[in-house]
Amino acid sequence: MTDCIIIGSGTAGISAALTLKANGKNFIIFGSASLSEKIEKAESIRNYPGLSNATGKAFVAALKTQLSDMEIAVTEEKVIGVYAMNDKFGVATQNGNYYESKAVILACGVESVKTIEGETEFAGRGVSFCATCDGALYKEKTIAVFCTSKRLEHEIEYLAGFAKKVYLIPMYKPVEIERENIEIVRKMPVKIAGETRVNKLIFKDGELKIDGLFSLRESVSPVTLVNDLKTEGGHVCVTRKMETNLKGLFAAGDCTGRPYQYAKAVGEGNVAAHAVSEYLMGEMMLNGKAQTGDLTFRFE
Amino acid sequence: MTDCIIIGSGTAGISAALTLKANGKNFIIFGSASLSEKIEKAESIRNYPGLSNATGKAFVAALKTQLSDMEIAVTEEKVIGVYAMNDKFGVATQNGNYYESKAVILACGVESVKTIEGETEFAGRGVSFCATCDGALYKEKTIAVFCTSKRLEHEIEYLAGFAKKVYLIPMYKPVEIERENIEIVRKMPVKIAGETRVNKLIFKDGELKIDGLFSLRESVSPVTLVNDLKTEGGHVCVTRKMETNLKGLFAAGDCTGRPYQYAKAVGEGNVAAHAVSEYLMGEMMLNGKAQTGDLTFRFE
Repeated sequence: MTDCIIIGSGTAGISAALTLKANGKNFIIFGSASLSEKIEKAESIRNYPGLSNATGKAFVAALKTQLSDMEIAVTEEKVIGVYAMNDKFGVATQNGNYYESKAVILACGVESVKTIEGETEFAGRGVSFCATCDGALYKEKTIAVFCTSKRLEHEIEYLAGFAKKVYLIPMYKPVEIERENIEIVRKMPVKIAGETRVNKLIFKDGELKIDGLFSLRESVSPVTLVNDLKTEGGHVCVTRKMETNLKGLFAAGDCTGRPYQYAKAVGEGNVAAHAVSEYLMGEMMLNGKAQTGDLTFRFE
Repeated sequence: MTDCIIIGSGTAGISAALTLKANGKNFIIFGSASLSEKIEKAESIRNYPGLSNATGKAFVAALKTQLSDMEIAVTEEKVIGVYAMNDKFGVATQNGNYYESKAVILACGVESVKTIEGETEFAGRGVSFCATCDGALYKEKTIAVFCTSKRLEHEIEYLAGFAKKVYLIPMYKPVEIERENIEIVRKMPVKIAGETRVNKLIFKDGELKIDGLFSLRESVSPVTLVNDLKTEGGHVCVTRKMETNLKGLFAAGDCTGRPYQYAKAVGEGNVAAHAVSEYLMGEMMLNGKAQTGDLTFRFE
């Protein structure tokens, strides 16, 4: 079991990882080896202290060097569920792997593309966020696939291997996937509807009959990831120590709210990592395993 | 009247300044042209995202370049008082200047040297934090000078020009000032005592009769700077938006509490600057001066 699992390799997740490493904790950071598409696309970063008018590419390159210097490797698995247990967390990934950890830091960012009405309501009842998990359930069926990033096209391919018909609603250009059973729909859905289960996708000017909808997004929304997580306006509620309402679960970066800024994310990642160290120490004290000398830092 | 005054040129203050500049606000940042002695002394910075194993000197150099690129100049005056008025703040500096601002960000750091017992209690009744302000009051008197940094030696010189006798208690080495009426005391005071006014300084093994005590510190404690500011354990109490208990007054960085880390300070400076912009917009709306288009960003 690791001390901590960090979900997300944007600035918040990286900041948390650097600090956990400096504090001698063992952890896994899930994300992308290319770290963050969002950062990479930034034309010019002016207000991040220490970088004078850097490009997003230069910032990502600097972060990669730093991770490699600190011997931190990003684990490229997409997290699809976080399960809070008594004194630990279970974390499931799309690859079918399962990890356990004493603490978790959510640093999954925010999706710039809004949730479709009904997406959360019908989760598990026809709406899925994981192609490899649920694809086989839709053999010979008709599905819609809402996809926010070209990087997820391989998942569409996978789904089209099962489904009879795929209505693909891409939020990116160009679409490079071509298959007979895939029809591209260039309209924004208004609502996912159904009775006990999803049965149609509604647009301003019409609707499609579907058996299910896959929502493929770069970052899964925290509410979808973790049951009973307290949020407000789509953002995770946190204290000044980046604690969520669930003991041992912390959050940092854009997922905790505006301003969506590198500096804020970096700060929160750092604070979350310190709070995790403090939390782990508290747990050790409770179990009588710690010596006072282990307490190398503290908040108030 | 400026939009904002930032007090402190450490990482929090600089982060706030960069963001206010990017947001098109006019502001003054008070601090030191060398920015921060603390950062400069850092041997190696490992967990600040973007800087791979940089020295404190390299970090300071990068910050200076960035400030100059963004055309931000640090005003080298020491702030000695912040006065909250109805809808603005008055800020007094040691040079005898007085500034007005709509909002203020406290980014004054924390003094590593603890407050002496009685220091806050006797403020204005024999304890002073400003040599040039109160020095002349101690003509031909006996004073103690508690000084935390060599950079403040010119103030001791100034005081010794008035006082008959100066007991200098330096928290640094070596002391380079030499005058007949200055006696160096290499002991940590335990308590400042007196009745209506200060009359003695107590040590573990004795005491000194004094008429007043000057506490010369690199950073004045926020409680000393601002009346009625809510603090806890010496740290300014803030919300997630870095608001203090006083409307229009924000705080960021070490002065708001642990962890004392660059990343945290940078994040809080950024958030404080955004909160100031939001605050100014709110005030404009109240006064009917704003157009909706001015609202270039928002928190939730």
